[in-house]
Amino acid sequence: MGDARTGINPPEDRHRELLEKAGKPAEESIRLHPRYRGKIEIVPKCPVASLDDFAVWYTPGVAAACTAIHRDPELVYRYTNKWNSVAVVTDGSRVLGLGDIGPEAALPTMEGKALLFKYLGGVDAFPVCLETGDTGELIRTVKALQPSFGGINLEDIAQPGCFEVLERLRAECRIPVWHDDQQGTAAVTLAALINSLEVVGKEIGRVRIALAGAGAANLCIARMLILSGADPARIVIADSKGTLHRNRKELEETHPRKWEMCLETNPEQIEGGIPEAMKGADVLIALSRPGPRTILPEWIGGMGGDPVCFLCANPIPELWPWEAKEAGARIVATGRSDFPNQVNNSLGFPGIFRGALDVRASTISDRMCLAAAGELAAFARERGIDEEYITPTMADREVYPRVAVAVGMAAAEEGLAAEPLSREELKERAEGIINRARAETETLMREGLID
Amino acid sequence: MGDARTGINPPEDRHRELLEKAGKPAEESIRLHPRYRGKIEIVPKCPVASLDDFAVWYTPGVAAACTAIHRDPELVYRYTNKWNSVAVVTDGSRVLGLGDIGPEAALPTMEGKALLFKYLGGVDAFPVCLETGDTGELIRTVKALQPSFGGINLEDIAQPGCFEVLERLRAECRIPVWHDDQQGTAAVTLAALINSLEVVGKEIGRVRIALAGAGAANLCIARMLILSGADPARIVIADSKGTLHRNRKELEETHPRKWEMCLETNPEQIEGGIPEAMKGADVLIALSRPGPRTILPEWIGGMGGDPVCFLCANPIPELWPWEAKEAGARIVATGRSDFPNQVNNSLGFPGIFRGALDVRASTISDRMCLAAAGELAAFARERGIDEEYITPTMADREVYPRVAVAVGMAAAEEGLAAEPLSREELKERAEGIINRARAETETLMREGLID
Repeated sequence: MGDARTGINPPEDRHRELLEKAGKPAEESIRLHPRYRGKIEIVPKCPVASLDDFAVWYTPGVAAACTAIHRDPELVYRYTNKWNSVAVVTDGSRVLGLGDIGPEAALPTMEGKALLFKYLGGVDAFPVCLETGDTGELIRTVKALQPSFGGINLEDIAQPGCFEVLERLRAECRIPVWHDDQQGTAAVTLAALINSLEVVGKEIGRVRIALAGAGAANLCIARMLILSGADPARIVIADSKGTLHRNRKELEETHPRKWEMCLETNPEQIEGGIPEAMKGADVLIALSRPGPRTILPEWIGGMGGDPVCFLCANPIPELWPWEAKEAGARIVATGRSDFPNQVNNSLGFPGIFRGALDVRASTISDRMCLAAAGELAAFARERGIDEEYITPTMADREVYPRVAVAVGMAAAEEGLAAEPLSREELKERAEGIINRARAETETLMREGLID
Repeated sequence: MGDARTGINPPEDRHRELLEKAGKPAEESIRLHPRYRGKIEIVPKCPVASLDDFAVWYTPGVAAACTAIHRDPELVYRYTNKWNSVAVVTDGSRVLGLGDIGPEAALPTMEGKALLFKYLGGVDAFPVCLETGDTGELIRTVKALQPSFGGINLEDIAQPGCFEVLERLRAECRIPVWHDDQQGTAAVTLAALINSLEVVGKEIGRVRIALAGAGAANLCIARMLILSGADPARIVIADSKGTLHRNRKELEETHPRKWEMCLETNPEQIEGGIPEAMKGADVLIALSRPGPRTILPEWIGGMGGDPVCFLCANPIPELWPWEAKEAGARIVATGRSDFPNQVNNSLGFPGIFRGALDVRASTISDRMCLAAAGELAAFARERGIDEEYITPTMADREVYPRVAVAVGMAAAEEGLAAEPLSREELKERAEGIINRARAETETLMREGLID
């Protein structure tokens, strides 16, 4: 029997219920994946009323469009779907929490990502699962793919390779390239943090922040925190070997990104592991190993007053939220939809890409991501934030065009937009495209084409 | 003023009219391409009734599908859209008749191809325009792309590179790879020839055949003619330097495919060019330079009785059909939809891929293409062939599932089908998929999602 007032059962029951509930999507998934045999498909977006139309869309008429692009390469953005096409690229080397399962086993996830891209952001994303031997070949392959796409979303690529892949592709490609596990995660996490600090009444420049885990996501989050005004001297990051500081010399050679953080953060050279990093901290951002009990309640007990705890490992958070609350956490966020405060990439990438594509941004800069984070936070604040609502949810459909507008405007301000638009134009465009994508899905379902 | 009885105007008027008409699709194309900004888009093919569905199609549920494929790689054909996905791959090195215009300028054509793939064959084709430095890189890139796709359609790649690309990819890929400009063109040309010979009452083993042009298409056609019973001793091929024969030693090094034909055909060592090849021939298959007057009427006058002339250069045939008729041709075919007897790849590839995908064929063999040619020819014969109807048209929508069934059965007979089906099952499946694709297009148009 649960507690009727709070709706929360005692931990054991709750744990069992949660585990049962957590198993449901997997069961449904194994039942439904073979029924639909794919999550996305290709459809015409131009009229085909009679076969005569093919003389316009294909030979002989199409030659005129090809010739025009050959003369003026910019026209490829006017005459084709390149402007709205994104490759969801992986080598399958670190898929979800499953590790290096390879590019074919990664395909269901990449199709799922493409589904979200379209439904939430109106973006035509295609899953590109690559069988490549090494980082160099992955980079060469993505560069070769550029002509068909307006942007590249890297996904589920293991570190440290993912850093080189992202950096080199950003430097060498003509179209925006981003790694959702870095900037995407950072944008939504930052949004949730901004509002959490508002709720507990603290300033970002004065809080002590512990980061548990030093994967691609947390390293990017650390960078974005500092860009947003966090004091690097008050940040302590811990990886599986301990806290990052100047004496972790082994990282200088093996992991330049971590080494940068060894130099930049933790000047007090706090040694130890996650508990030492958390001692006295106002904020914990954990993106480490799935729990439960990767983080212990007593560590939260050792944090500062009104601690903010993001326990974002998937599928099981580093500590169950009710345990974190009992241990004193004022605000708890996780990666899961079955608790309040889900910090979820799906809030970010659809609108961020929508905005980047709509102004033809040459890249997706950190400042564009900060703009997205700020807009996500503002959106939730307008609706009224509290301990259980610090970030929008995926059901807040108006949030996606809002993010797109913020990102498009930021790109233009930085001089990164080849086709800048006014705020009003951006809004109208993003809303039109996203609403059409949803209407398309609804129509196909209503007419029985999706059964 | 035209001749009221035949509906044919004098050549000059007709010529002017034709040129005007031939210019129409290009004008429409330049008007309509920027309006629709792309010919294909991505839509969900699984239900999204509420955001809870994303827990099944994406995290956390999707992990179960990924894990299952990791354990049993065959399941990628059950749990994803791989089974129905084809990459339309080009490097833009020989697009239509436009030459090496590059991968970005090729995109409108590849999107058009993807449109036909879906509308006519129910196949989800995605345009992959590659920026690659050399043949080796093109091959490596396509191999890396395999996990997302069930098949590869090579398109508009210049020779001689295209031969190496096709051969190596067929040898080294796990999924079927074909080059539509070779086997696709050969299948539809062979179908038209089978019925032409039926109309003129000649046997394929006894006719003399002249091939004008020795590009990728005609070299493949020559091979398929021989496989179909044509006598290589009665075949003469001419390229821009003259007829192919044993004294064209320069080809031994530079062009092994042509050299094979130098050894195999024209044992009489007929020298000269196209007119010498045509002298006394029963059949002309011209896939050479756009006309008019690449082929001269007097050369047709020098052919055997009841000559069959395929004048397939695009956009202008090697000789206008009425001139060919006046010069004595009994049957004339072209690549154009505005004359009778259009020999058009679009009749072939949608059904051929449909059949290959539906039985999960490991390759698309020459015998599968011959089966497609035979079925195309049989389909037209059932409707009653004559000089002006030797091949089905794209409006014969029942022809696509018919071809799919023939190809699927041929793959199974050769032991190339991983998932063979009965003739009835194949028919039901191909019809279901193709009808759904057409219904989808109609629905999107009717509901105003395509305006």
